Amino acid sequence: MRILILGGDGYLGWPTAMHFSSSGHEVHAVDNYLRRRAHAEAGTDSLTPIGASLPARAEAWREVSGQTIGVTEGDLTEWDVVQRVFREFEPEAIVHYGEMPSAPYSMIDREHAVFTQHNNVENTMNVLWAMRDLAPDAHLVKLGTMGEYGTPNIDIEEGYIEISHNGRTDELPFPKMPGSIYHLSKVHDSHNLHFACRIWGLRATDLNQGVVYGIRTDETALDDRLLTRFDYDEVFGTALNRFCLQAVIGHPLTVYGAGGQTRGFLNIVDTLRCVELATLNPAAAGEFRVFNQFTEQFSVLELAELVQKAGAEAGLDVKVDHLDNPRVEREEHYYNAQHTKLVELGLEPHLLSETLIESMFSAIERYRDRVSMEHILPRTRWKPPVREPQGA
Amino acid sequence: MRILILGGDGYLGWPTAMHFSSSGHEVHAVDNYLRRRAHAEAGTDSLTPIGASLPARAEAWREVSGQTIGVTEGDLTEWDVVQRVFREFEPEAIVHYGEMPSAPYSMIDREHAVFTQHNNVENTMNVLWAMRDLAPDAHLVKLGTMGEYGTPNIDIEEGYIEISHNGRTDELPFPKMPGSIYHLSKVHDSHNLHFACRIWGLRATDLNQGVVYGIRTDETALDDRLLTRFDYDEVFGTALNRFCLQAVIGHPLTVYGAGGQTRGFLNIVDTLRCVELATLNPAAAGEFRVFNQFTEQFSVLELAELVQKAGAEAGLDVKVDHLDNPRVEREEHYYNAQHTKLVELGLEPHLLSETLIESMFSAIERYRDRVSMEHILPRTRWKPPVREPQGA
Repeated sequence: MRILILGGDGYLGWPTAMHFSSSGHEVHAVDNYLRRRAHAEAGTDSLTPIGASLPARAEAWREVSGQTIGVTEGDLTEWDVVQRVFREFEPEAIVHYGEMPSAPYSMIDREHAVFTQHNNVENTMNVLWAMRDLAPDAHLVKLGTMGEYGTPNIDIEEGYIEISHNGRTDELPFPKMPGSIYHLSKVHDSHNLHFACRIWGLRATDLNQGVVYGIRTDETALDDRLLTRFDYDEVFGTALNRFCLQAVIGHPLTVYGAGGQTRGFLNIVDTLRCVELATLNPAAAGEFRVFNQFTEQFSVLELAELVQKAGAEAGLDVKVDHLDNPRVEREEHYYNAQHTKLVELGLEPHLLSETLIESMFSAIERYRDRVSMEHILPRTRWKPPVREPQGA
Repeated sequence: MRILILGGDGYLGWPTAMHFSSSGHEVHAVDNYLRRRAHAEAGTDSLTPIGASLPARAEAWREVSGQTIGVTEGDLTEWDVVQRVFREFEPEAIVHYGEMPSAPYSMIDREHAVFTQHNNVENTMNVLWAMRDLAPDAHLVKLGTMGEYGTPNIDIEEGYIEISHNGRTDELPFPKMPGSIYHLSKVHDSHNLHFACRIWGLRATDLNQGVVYGIRTDETALDDRLLTRFDYDEVFGTALNRFCLQAVIGHPLTVYGAGGQTRGFLNIVDTLRCVELATLNPAAAGEFRVFNQFTEQFSVLELAELVQKAGAEAGLDVKVDHLDNPRVEREEHYYNAQHTKLVELGLEPHLLSETLIESMFSAIERYRDRVSMEHILPRTRWKPPVREPQGA
């Protein structure tokens, strides 16, 4: 199958590109290095060294595997880039990771907020028009987020919910209450995708992904040049990855507030399998399919305690700090999200274990001299600073 | 009260500015003439002559009423414009009409689609950040649309719906199924507004407005220089206004398909009153309030028949054409939308009557020599042209 990977230089995009390539698919990866530039702007970097350009990574992949990954260095908000890639590669499936992926980044200030929605909504809109006019039978596998739903007081279904009201019933999109400007951009995308399927008959699968952890896939392990990035800073790092790194470097685990915030989580190798299952089992023409893509629910405090326990096994003395929560979110809430559709397609989850955490410790240990301590604590706050009283 | 009118040059914005000004409020209007430029691009124009610039219209208002309306000619997607207006005028209420308002415009092609979401979502995002940092106690009265809901098979509530599911209950945002890229932009805005109220404690009222008809308000009637615009072309004209004009010029009424599409409608004078009621009764801090702003439901065919009947009374021989529907929408569907919140605040609806339709006939008659016949029939189609079979 000809598979286009948008955001092919990223934490998940690059391993996904190699994974499809190793299975014999024809793969083309597009990236504009947005994440690398955002890191450079903030003075941060991936724990793992991934200095090589995307073409150089693809060349290393060719040397190691004998397989070819095509590359376009370009910005998907530019129509010329999008249409050229669609005309030349003629994708049968499009896996779309190519968005600004960070909630804190989107909350830094107005400029970052507007940029996040501009980048994510407009590049996805370009992809939908490219599909409409150049690849109407292709299947879009779009990375969304479980954060689109927020934390409602009812069970979260997979994309749709049957509502009975005043004696009538309909199945409608599940209501959305996202918690950041970034998460909002994914909600906007979901509505745009649904429309494109309903009106133009396109095929799309929205993968509402949980928080991904892990540092290793079958392909990244083949050669150091094939490593994927691993972010641990407050802007791009995600909960479990950050906690594991903090444990290794002896920093107290940064639990925000009470830590009762519950979310869905999954291993990076399960992300690759979920995307593969969605791609190999495409949505029907006109179908907008939504899968909740995670394998387990944890509260943030449960995660911290798991890392603490694995740390003790590994001889690390891990402390847990409860910081003032920089975000605005419920710290205690009901949370129960369905996630059966990918299992029905064949997903066999790799559940979180102490062994996995310990293997992350040793992978991190190898690069610990690259850690910048000053980017561990949260700095981005959801609320503006408290104003001086008027007339003061 | 200091009231900022965004989109103050428009069909509703200009009469709203005059209406608040005549009640003694301090009014400042902002516009970048986007609608005028879109008309120029398409070779169309308002039926009523409104050639004067916004400052010239404000000057005419000063001569007629003795009241002042401040003016900024500028683009709200530019932060410098937004922050300057907020700093200098210090609004207590912001009435936001300042968006690209046309469904067909947004469906013309990719460029118009991307522009519509770019313009609407980003300028509203700028307004929210300006409120957050410069006017946190101000109240945003934002024009949304009933089209955000689509046509679900259950009663449409005002913004929220209580959902019971698996033994638990929550009140959540009403699910959205909009029918165009433009309507999607309003859905995106609604989610962004809700977030800004939840996270930053802002006050906002989303007015999910029905289709507005009418050509005259108390203030536009005072002087020909105070007329508001009246669009009748396929891109910017709305159902009843178009039908009335078609009746006057002897063009068959352009019903799309069967005409069973049912929507909410309201008179332009009720729009002004609804916006006034929302403004004078602001939302609480942190509250995202949603009102469904219309007074009556009609199917498109019912409207056509009303115009036909009023035409017969007025000596006009009005024919009804059922055109191939250029849109993708249900032509027969359940539709029952709540609209009690504005009535509870004091709205006394001006319902549609034959007398009102006949008065629109005479207002239109006066400018009939300005009508361009070639822009009556729909040209913008929701679906791409049927493709040639491959290999043909």
